[in-house]
Amino acid sequence: MKPINLLGLSGSLREQSINSRLLRELTYRSPAGVTLNVYDSLGALPLFNPDLESRPPSTVLAYWSALKSCDGVIIASPEYAHGYTGTIKNALDWCVGEGAFVEKKVAVLNAAPRSSIAVDSLKEVLRTIDAFVVENASLEIPVLGRDLSDPDAFSSPCIESLMGNVFQELVVEIQACSASSGAKE
Amino acid sequence: MKPINLLGLSGSLREQSINSRLLRELTYRSPAGVTLNVYDSLGALPLFNPDLESRPPSTVLAYWSALKSCDGVIIASPEYAHGYTGTIKNALDWCVGEGAFVEKKVAVLNAAPRSSIAVDSLKEVLRTIDAFVVENASLEIPVLGRDLSDPDAFSSPCIESLMGNVFQELVVEIQACSASSGAKE
Repeated sequence: MKPINLLGLSGSLREQSINSRLLRELTYRSPAGVTLNVYDSLGALPLFNPDLESRPPSTVLAYWSALKSCDGVIIASPEYAHGYTGTIKNALDWCVGEGAFVEKKVAVLNAAPRSSIAVDSLKEVLRTIDAFVVENASLEIPVLGRDLSDPDAFSSPCIESLMGNVFQELVVEIQACSASSGAKE
Repeated sequence: MKPINLLGLSGSLREQSINSRLLRELTYRSPAGVTLNVYDSLGALPLFNPDLESRPPSTVLAYWSALKSCDGVIIASPEYAHGYTGTIKNALDWCVGEGAFVEKKVAVLNAAPRSSIAVDSLKEVLRTIDAFVVENASLEIPVLGRDLSDPDAFSSPCIESLMGNVFQELVVEIQACSASSGAKE
């Protein structure tokens, strides 16, 4: 199997973010042949300004480069006031014109299943910038409220199983696409 | 009449933004007793981080101060990829915990009536942070595509009339609230 590189994006800059922790926990559980790197510099992106697209700052270039070199993306982001966070939308705004998400396979996780407005809106934005939202990998993983000081907070069989499914479904979609584009060559 | 101070917020940082221009054009047309100042430093706000709320940077303090000292807010923001911009949501994220929008009268303008997802979502966020969205003042003002190099681009009778209505309806609501709270004292 061709190695698969995934990129994790958290929509929260909080040090003790449950979404960032969820992504880190996923990195420990990536299956053989799959690597998940969490991009930890979304907070360094400037607020999007179309006037800067023709001369993007280095933080933006590094972000685009990370996106382009990955096979798929896992997004975990909180909901603030019935909406996605400004941080995650800003990261997507930087890709509208540049196209870094085009045909990218994306899983949008929800750590707080009682909140779904942000997740649904994010999926709409992602589809609009031509990303491929992998619904089977976009799971609700109910970890909100867990004790983040507990190293085993994410070790329940249910949560482990859900995390495994995220990888499995995302990989299936990436491989199917890879096989399909290979067949066309 | 007690003087009324309004604050304008643009969701775009583009130099030639139609939304920023719309707000500027409104400042020239504010009726007697009403002042509209456009806040031009939303781009200086850092991306929201809950960890910084207890020790906010000076840019955030200045923004909160401007919000608190105004009687109402006029928001004009574009739609990027079927969503509000990261810039305007970031500005609202900074107010979720702090409460700077509580009971604030807000008009949400739409310069591109064919796009309504961002406006509807913004209103939902504003209501969630306890702002009072003044629907009668939240008008579609179809100026998208106008030639911004033309100083008279916003001078058609229709556009003038709509801009007048924004002020009128917002002022009616602010004065009604002011009279009501005065009666309680």
